[in-house]
Amino acid sequence: LEALPLESKAKRPGGRSARVRAAVHEALVKLLAKGDRAGISIADVAALSRVHPTSIYRRWGTLEGLFLDVALARIEDEVPIPDTGSLRDDLLGFAKHAAAHIEAPAGFALLRALIAMDEGQPRRKGGPDQERLRLFAPRARAIQEMLDRAAARGERSLQTTDVLDGVLAPLYMRFLFGVGGVNGVYLALLVDRALTAPPGPPRPRVPKQRRRKK
Amino acid sequence: LEALPLESKAKRPGGRSARVRAAVHEALVKLLAKGDRAGISIADVAALSRVHPTSIYRRWGTLEGLFLDVALARIEDEVPIPDTGSLRDDLLGFAKHAAAHIEAPAGFALLRALIAMDEGQPRRKGGPDQERLRLFAPRARAIQEMLDRAAARGERSLQTTDVLDGVLAPLYMRFLFGVGGVNGVYLALLVDRALTAPPGPPRPRVPKQRRRKK
Repeated sequence: LEALPLESKAKRPGGRSARVRAAVHEALVKLLAKGDRAGISIADVAALSRVHPTSIYRRWGTLEGLFLDVALARIEDEVPIPDTGSLRDDLLGFAKHAAAHIEAPAGFALLRALIAMDEGQPRRKGGPDQERLRLFAPRARAIQEMLDRAAARGERSLQTTDVLDGVLAPLYMRFLFGVGGVNGVYLALLVDRALTAPPGPPRPRVPKQRRRKK
Repeated sequence: LEALPLESKAKRPGGRSARVRAAVHEALVKLLAKGDRAGISIADVAALSRVHPTSIYRRWGTLEGLFLDVALARIEDEVPIPDTGSLRDDLLGFAKHAAAHIEAPAGFALLRALIAMDEGQPRRKGGPDQERLRLFAPRARAIQEMLDRAAARGERSLQTTDVLDGVLAPLYMRFLFGVGGVNGVYLALLVDRALTAPPGPPRPRVPKQRRRKK
């Protein structure tokens, strides 16, 4: 990756903006790979990416905002939403990519960082974190579209929450608690359970997406 | 709680040991309640509990060991294993207590601390964390005994992993990711799914329990 000057003379907001984002993302992932998550600061990211800290604060607001942006970008990149023409194959492919993503050190570190991170923020009892729901809404919609394609083909009609509860949650929990035992047989079991489970509750309300800066 | 002298003249290992444990546990929970988890050190726990840091290191080894001990003690206290004579009622009671435990600030803070904590430790790809498995083995056995009682009554035969995957994982994930939507209807749905799911894989091997110092 090309090193970025702190002050760019060229006025090309699109190109520069994309390069800044790539450099900052790459720096954070490198820092995470060192296993030093607890000690990562915006100053560290700024130093490694050679992007001015002020630019990072202006664009991402907080370290949590930056982590969320990197996590989403990596999830979108590493966990594609399949379209195989079969709901079971779609779910299996999705689960395999999700498992590989979580198992990779950077994915695992990001996941844990996000869980640890909203410390200190007021969280209503059992209530959803609106900001996270909003950021992950496009992802939830993409999963729902995969499920809706299957329903339109006459296959079982599932909701995103069914995939969250039945496939992603057990997978995440096994990695997060170090329980182990995630393999192809296990993933197939989770998918087959999701395909035969009693129908879930109605879709939760997802807040409207606010336009994100690119 | 009675304040403990740093040097006790009385030689009553059992009584003093129990009081030290209670004082240290209470101090950690108080520090967690302040929302300052990332900054908690053994020195802080020592200062608040009036137990010498050396005693804490000797007994719990690491901050992670102390957190695990407190988490286990609270889980055992707050999430009793029911024995109602009905598997569905047992699971519903268990799920309700588990949800209340996670939702409480101290339970939630402990959960997140444990997830964030084994940073830097080598973790085999997808492999289980043997130390945690060992510490939680008695708890897993207690859940399995509840399930075995149901099987002996002629009810559905489930494994602890079925409860982990089908009930606890979705519950934990909704709290951890701030997705929300955990209520009685949802808990009943998770339980009914666990009761109708296709049978799971064989029981994972649980390492033998090493005797813990009391």
